[in-house]
Amino acid sequence: MSGTDGTASIREQASRCREAAQQLAQLDTAAKDALLRSMARALDDDADAILAANAHDLDAARAKGIAGAMLDRLALDGKRLSGIAGALREVAALPDPVGQVTRRETRPNGIQVERVRVPLGVIAMIYEARPNVTADAAALCIKAGNGVILRGGSEAIHSNTAIASALQRAIGEAGLDPAVLTLVTDLRRETMLELLQLTDIVDLAIPRGGEGLIRFVAEHARVPVIKHYKGVCHLYVDRDADLGLALRLLLDGKASRPGVCNALETVLVHADVADEFLPRAAAALRARQVELRGDEATRALVPDAVPATTDDYAAEFLDLIIAARVVADLDAAIGHIRQYTSDHTEVIATRDEAVARRFVESLRSAVVMVNASSRFSDGGELGLGAEIGISTTRLHSYGPMGLEALTVERFVVRGEGQVRHPDLL
Amino acid sequence: MSGTDGTASIREQASRCREAAQQLAQLDTAAKDALLRSMARALDDDADAILAANAHDLDAARAKGIAGAMLDRLALDGKRLSGIAGALREVAALPDPVGQVTRRETRPNGIQVERVRVPLGVIAMIYEARPNVTADAAALCIKAGNGVILRGGSEAIHSNTAIASALQRAIGEAGLDPAVLTLVTDLRRETMLELLQLTDIVDLAIPRGGEGLIRFVAEHARVPVIKHYKGVCHLYVDRDADLGLALRLLLDGKASRPGVCNALETVLVHADVADEFLPRAAAALRARQVELRGDEATRALVPDAVPATTDDYAAEFLDLIIAARVVADLDAAIGHIRQYTSDHTEVIATRDEAVARRFVESLRSAVVMVNASSRFSDGGELGLGAEIGISTTRLHSYGPMGLEALTVERFVVRGEGQVRHPDLL
Repeated sequence: MSGTDGTASIREQASRCREAAQQLAQLDTAAKDALLRSMARALDDDADAILAANAHDLDAARAKGIAGAMLDRLALDGKRLSGIAGALREVAALPDPVGQVTRRETRPNGIQVERVRVPLGVIAMIYEARPNVTADAAALCIKAGNGVILRGGSEAIHSNTAIASALQRAIGEAGLDPAVLTLVTDLRRETMLELLQLTDIVDLAIPRGGEGLIRFVAEHARVPVIKHYKGVCHLYVDRDADLGLALRLLLDGKASRPGVCNALETVLVHADVADEFLPRAAAALRARQVELRGDEATRALVPDAVPATTDDYAAEFLDLIIAARVVADLDAAIGHIRQYTSDHTEVIATRDEAVARRFVESLRSAVVMVNASSRFSDGGELGLGAEIGISTTRLHSYGPMGLEALTVERFVVRGEGQVRHPDLL
Repeated sequence: MSGTDGTASIREQASRCREAAQQLAQLDTAAKDALLRSMARALDDDADAILAANAHDLDAARAKGIAGAMLDRLALDGKRLSGIAGALREVAALPDPVGQVTRRETRPNGIQVERVRVPLGVIAMIYEARPNVTADAAALCIKAGNGVILRGGSEAIHSNTAIASALQRAIGEAGLDPAVLTLVTDLRRETMLELLQLTDIVDLAIPRGGEGLIRFVAEHARVPVIKHYKGVCHLYVDRDADLGLALRLLLDGKASRPGVCNALETVLVHADVADEFLPRAAAALRARQVELRGDEATRALVPDAVPATTDDYAAEFLDLIIAARVVADLDAAIGHIRQYTSDHTEVIATRDEAVARRFVESLRSAVVMVNASSRFSDGGELGLGAEIGISTTRLHSYGPMGLEALTVERFVVRGEGQVRHPDLL
């Protein structure tokens, strides 16, 4: 059904994206990489138009009183736009997961069984006012052979339209239906809801943004959703930790970029080293304007620490605040983390191999680090090349998601006429 | 909240299963395998009680007028029960996916990144009156370190209770909380609906049974669901097929066990070989009591074929019926399959490598076979060792699902104090 204004309905748009994705899935790696480089060039070519559209969005956002980090995420300039085009070229240079044979076995009856990666199909990205996601997500989905339906925040609609239009021109020039990249411009909530019900067309929805948006998508979607709500990352400083190393992990984890999901939110300290570690940590945190909120044992050692509440241990502060707690032993640390974990990233500082192993095996978070900073919990840092999101859903993909997470393995079998019941013939 | 009759609510039961699953996840392979063998022994020990309970179910089913295949699936005897216990021992002998390191990389900064398989957590199995599923699904979930919540059909409730009770005794004797295997005995529909909403506890629901049950679960669950509705499997007989080989695939695919999802439902024949292949195929099918429903071109060659309707091409007959259609070329065959596919299994018979490759690459079904029977589309036949279900959901797992599909890869990182922003320290 068409909309009353003559535009295609979201179902029609999504169906066309799905058809186009079948064309895309036939392209070989070289053709997809050439397309991604053309898309990068189209962004460069359209820089003036994109920046003008972005200025339009910024004016409207300021008029609505938007400021600070949100305005900053919305803003583009020549340098940022070049960075976005550069990211597309980096995606072009990554290995193509599609067609990879992950396993190969010849069965006793002679049939050869392969597991081969294929694209998921059509991916719906639901995100907030970050125009860079429009290009980044499109590039990753297309590299992995998927159609992509982009539904960004209303504050970025002019920027997103200009970016999508450049990318679609490059797609069309490559002989593909530009609908393989579909930007949803009807931003009514009911249209997004309709998109999230299209179980026969959309293979996966990935929401990116604040917890509110993600919960909304997770609660209303009938299509599969991969999400993460928040990162409440823990550092446990063991009795056998190198305390200098532990302090480095603490400062990097909390102070290097407090507004991201892989920043630390809570530090747990073994009672045997608390009197040595906590005062030193408190001083270093204080010097970096980090507020320390502690339990009674922490405050006995750091008198100016703010009393920590249960809510503090569950919080993703996204700010220069950290919660601290003294724990009796490894088990108490594991117990605390199991209670408060967001399944994102946990870190242990210890020199004791057996303790490290037990920490890793006792926790089921997506990423567990031994003597390394939580800030490495990122697709690029972990070697995925790029990241479309981080999953704390323990299904399909868990932790940072790269290109491979946009594919699935299927079976390809080759035989010479083998049948299961030759006696019947 | 407890139920009004004093029993635990489904949320309480599921929470306890989740706690128990954390204990289970700590067991090493040897301990899990010993547990599975004890569970098999417990089934043997309780054979009399289980068969008595099953007789009770069978009486009630007959009184309700249940007969035929459904009654047969419900029925146990000494031999079938031994088979179920044997299947548990086979699961014990399979390789353990948990802890497998699937990738290992040292990053330029020296951190060592591993991808390691961990259990999914808690799996809810929703199934019909097949008591063998109670033991099979429990064994596979437990081997992969997961808690399992079993919600079987009401017709098998006494059998399921007796089987679960034997298995739980073995679990308790191993020092684990028997709640790791939780049988739902409150079979009210609203209780199942509540179970399917427990997104904070249940990691995955797997429905097994008829299309109605699966649609009900898929439409009402808020937890992730892996499903397949039906298997509309196609055989395409190419112009360059070995026609004797194609006939073997056709007969094995349709007549060896028509009631299963990997049976063939439609045969597509290239026009150039239709006059040679179809009359011969029709005679062989007729000799095996298979009804042929064909398009006009088929009926021109096989006058006694029943006219095929569009519905026939979409049907999973689960019976000795097959639809046939003559197609102009490979593209027409691909077009037909894309229109009617259930994403399960497609087969091509051809000697032309290039045609085979294009068939495989143009179709996105979970299993694609070249010159081999669709009936190999099965976890055991494809080398998975056992099968918990077949997924036509293009996410997490696609096609037959074995133990590995009950796990997910996460990241384990080991460093020596590496941080992301050393300049900040």
